[in-house]
Amino acid sequence: MENIAVNKSFGGWHKQYNHQSTSLNCAMRFAIYLPPQAASGEKVPVLYWLSGLTCSDENMMQKAGAHRIAAALGIAIVAPDTSPRGEDVANDEAYDLGQGAGFYVNATQAPWSSHYQMYDYIVNELPELIEANFPVSDQRAISGHSMGGHGALVIALRNADRYRSVSAFSPISNPINCPWGQKAFTAYLGSDKDSWAQYDASELMRLATQHVPAKVDQGESDDFLQEQLKPETLAAAAKTNDYPLELDLHTGYDHSYYFIASFIEDHLRFHAKHLSH
Amino acid sequence: MENIAVNKSFGGWHKQYNHQSTSLNCAMRFAIYLPPQAASGEKVPVLYWLSGLTCSDENMMQKAGAHRIAAALGIAIVAPDTSPRGEDVANDEAYDLGQGAGFYVNATQAPWSSHYQMYDYIVNELPELIEANFPVSDQRAISGHSMGGHGALVIALRNADRYRSVSAFSPISNPINCPWGQKAFTAYLGSDKDSWAQYDASELMRLATQHVPAKVDQGESDDFLQEQLKPETLAAAAKTNDYPLELDLHTGYDHSYYFIASFIEDHLRFHAKHLSH
Repeated sequence: MENIAVNKSFGGWHKQYNHQSTSLNCAMRFAIYLPPQAASGEKVPVLYWLSGLTCSDENMMQKAGAHRIAAALGIAIVAPDTSPRGEDVANDEAYDLGQGAGFYVNATQAPWSSHYQMYDYIVNELPELIEANFPVSDQRAISGHSMGGHGALVIALRNADRYRSVSAFSPISNPINCPWGQKAFTAYLGSDKDSWAQYDASELMRLATQHVPAKVDQGESDDFLQEQLKPETLAAAAKTNDYPLELDLHTGYDHSYYFIASFIEDHLRFHAKHLSH
Repeated sequence: MENIAVNKSFGGWHKQYNHQSTSLNCAMRFAIYLPPQAASGEKVPVLYWLSGLTCSDENMMQKAGAHRIAAALGIAIVAPDTSPRGEDVANDEAYDLGQGAGFYVNATQAPWSSHYQMYDYIVNELPELIEANFPVSDQRAISGHSMGGHGALVIALRNADRYRSVSAFSPISNPINCPWGQKAFTAYLGSDKDSWAQYDASELMRLATQHVPAKVDQGESDDFLQEQLKPETLAAAAKTNDYPLELDLHTGYDHSYYFIASFIEDHLRFHAKHLSH
């Protein structure tokens, strides 16, 4: 693990690292925000943040304004990249497939399957690395935006014993029924749709037997709302299954980080309720 | 004036505009954050933010986390670009000269003088445009980072009747005595150094007869501190002239927006003390 950048921020530290990922079979970069409490040897809980299409570890750290609240609450934030990267890694010219668009699945189809194992990376490899190398506890929460909101919901719903809480901004809530999801799942998982449901937040929430508290926020002026995001499907699944989902719509807000910044404090406080030091 | 982007943020609105600048003789983009108070017809005061080398109107709006406080305090923020732009505008391959590096001066030397009139643009043209087109008062404050901190200090010191307060993060405090300033001033103003002093914050603060309240913050781990920024020269000038300068150094902080984000609330509250609605 190689430390490539360090910035003091709100009394804590933002750091970027490169490491060789065994799940993804390539070099990966991630960022971590360590709140001031971590410097005194206290083991702090961790919020994992999964970013959206085209993003890297940097978007949330630079634009969400999350460090202020993380410092106040004593929560670390870990932001991985959104896909495997590199010249040897399969790619596509489109912004919504290949590098920058890993969709947090384990690909089964060529040419993707040799590197695109983001589900394993986020669920297992990255937390193991983080917990072995930083002053953090095994209290985990997970959140994300858009494609990353999909990833966060899917991962928490399938690993209820590993996460205390989950939240999402503008998640792709029902990828098996939207263009972004159908395109990515066809490429990564193949045309047999039976394998898709394990990566669909609405399907998983409808059937979940363990309930990780969930909070979702969605802007009503989001250009992707109707065609790609479909929060109403997630809401219906939660209702069917009596799932503890707080879903709020916000007039006038769009798909940008200005929306995330406006409500990130609410998300961190939601997670703080469920995380203990 | 053409509106090219709108994002709701903390109950207010971030907007980007293109307009044809008469001072700069080219098309220019700027951004404005209008706090929620502006929507109710109240005329709000304005903080002008001048960015650093290579930046545009976007860096501060996206990375500083300023909207939250501006919304709470009822202050608009205007972020112009850092130079004239376009194919017809003189440029240089270096990051610290030409487009993205206007240094907030009125150039007198070819080929720069036909477009590089950033001082006039910031002092006169832009406020006139803003005050004619948005629900803002003529209560102005000015701030900036690095090259923009230099610009903010110089502009406030030379126009004490136009600004209620000035602040800067990591400003180039004595450009006539540092490599960035000497390179830019030689190009834009010529080799006759008599013309340089009017754009040197330390020189101006040493001689100022009207005192705009000033706040400067500087990170002690800033890579540019000793060679380029020289806050000690500004502090000495303030002391000589009994100038009301609050200058604070911060252990561990660097030149990045993580430093700005960590202290932007203090700056906005400083300006709010001097601005009235």
